Amino acid sequence: MRVIFNEEMRAVADDLDTMAQDVRRAINLSCTALLKSDVEAAQSVIDGDSAIDNLESSILDQCVKLLAKQNPVATDLRVVVSTMRLASTFERMGDLARHLAEAARRTYPQSAITPDAMPLFTQMGDFLTVMADRMVSMLADRDAKTAEQIILSDDQLDALHHKTFDLVLADDWTGSRQDLINVVLLARFMERLGDHAVSAARRVVYIVSGFDPTKEPSRDEGTDID
Amino acid sequence: MRVIFNEEMRAVADDLDTMAQDVRRAINLSCTALLKSDVEAAQSVIDGDSAIDNLESSILDQCVKLLAKQNPVATDLRVVVSTMRLASTFERMGDLARHLAEAARRTYPQSAITPDAMPLFTQMGDFLTVMADRMVSMLADRDAKTAEQIILSDDQLDALHHKTFDLVLADDWTGSRQDLINVVLLARFMERLGDHAVSAARRVVYIVSGFDPTKEPSRDEGTDID
Repeated sequence: MRVIFNEEMRAVADDLDTMAQDVRRAINLSCTALLKSDVEAAQSVIDGDSAIDNLESSILDQCVKLLAKQNPVATDLRVVVSTMRLASTFERMGDLARHLAEAARRTYPQSAITPDAMPLFTQMGDFLTVMADRMVSMLADRDAKTAEQIILSDDQLDALHHKTFDLVLADDWTGSRQDLINVVLLARFMERLGDHAVSAARRVVYIVSGFDPTKEPSRDEGTDID
Repeated sequence: MRVIFNEEMRAVADDLDTMAQDVRRAINLSCTALLKSDVEAAQSVIDGDSAIDNLESSILDQCVKLLAKQNPVATDLRVVVSTMRLASTFERMGDLARHLAEAARRTYPQSAITPDAMPLFTQMGDFLTVMADRMVSMLADRDAKTAEQIILSDDQLDALHHKTFDLVLADDWTGSRQDLINVVLLARFMERLGDHAVSAARRVVYIVSGFDPTKEPSRDEGTDID
């Protein structure tokens, strides 16, 4: 039984790795789409989202079958349950990347972001690129240290997110109301990508250490807006 | 074994019902807080959110124990897995209600919403009140019909959400930039509450019918923004 479990669990873990890589790609391309008004990058993210959705679906199916047939307990059960949650988190991250890409496509050939907001969004994009790399490697190596880095670094993204409000509320801001809506919502999506990465990282810490991340006093990752 | 499973599952189902009722209360109070500038209602939502978080945590624990000890299969397994997802969905809905309440508290004694946006937000609040009632009753009765109503009615909320953009982009809109941010983000939180209710409703359809809602072609509930 044990051998089969490990073999089947390996297949699910491979799918989850693939999903993380697909999400990284979606994040990177959506940031390119947004920052460089690259409509092909945008389209690629939009077209690729259904593959991410299908992977989630397949992973959930495999996990339910594993639960039914193998009755995993202890660490194995923790891994299966966490895998289901990770798959759903990644699916949502794919949606958020798609939202960024859709905004880039909608405003093309104009940029969805005003020039004065570009430095902040570039910093957020850089942050997300590093975060996406960490997400893939923490998962491939089940590395709690990298997971901790993701968790601890999220404050930086929150700080950048708050600066976007300062920017659009400043006396000298000259953007239109549509510009303001874009800045507010797109920054929000990027900040939510960070929250989901933190949630995924907590899951990996749980797998590795057995410490349940849902037992943390604060469940909402340092933001007062969803 | 079967008797124990049903007994223990009944206890989890009761907790999930309680959670749905708590979320309904949070939604109703947060709408009151927002629409009536009722700071006590706001505080009550904010203070009550940790109870919702704790319920999620307890439900997930109980489900993992059930999976380990009882090895449920077929419908029973579907119920346990769905219960875990419903608990997480409700937890997120609690967060969103808290965000609404926090905005009401932050701007008190002023309203977070401009007078001209009040009719739209009142309609969204009314919609969410009906939706929250349906959510509680679909869960208590495992009623796929009520779940379908939730799924089908969500378009109305999306339409109201879109109207908030029309409002703030209209030539005659005179609100400040902070007003615009409030309208955009608060309408977004309300729209996301609807999305999560749809997600919960699909889960209940899955429990009742065995039809997997994740197999739906579109996973993102009819909106292009997170």
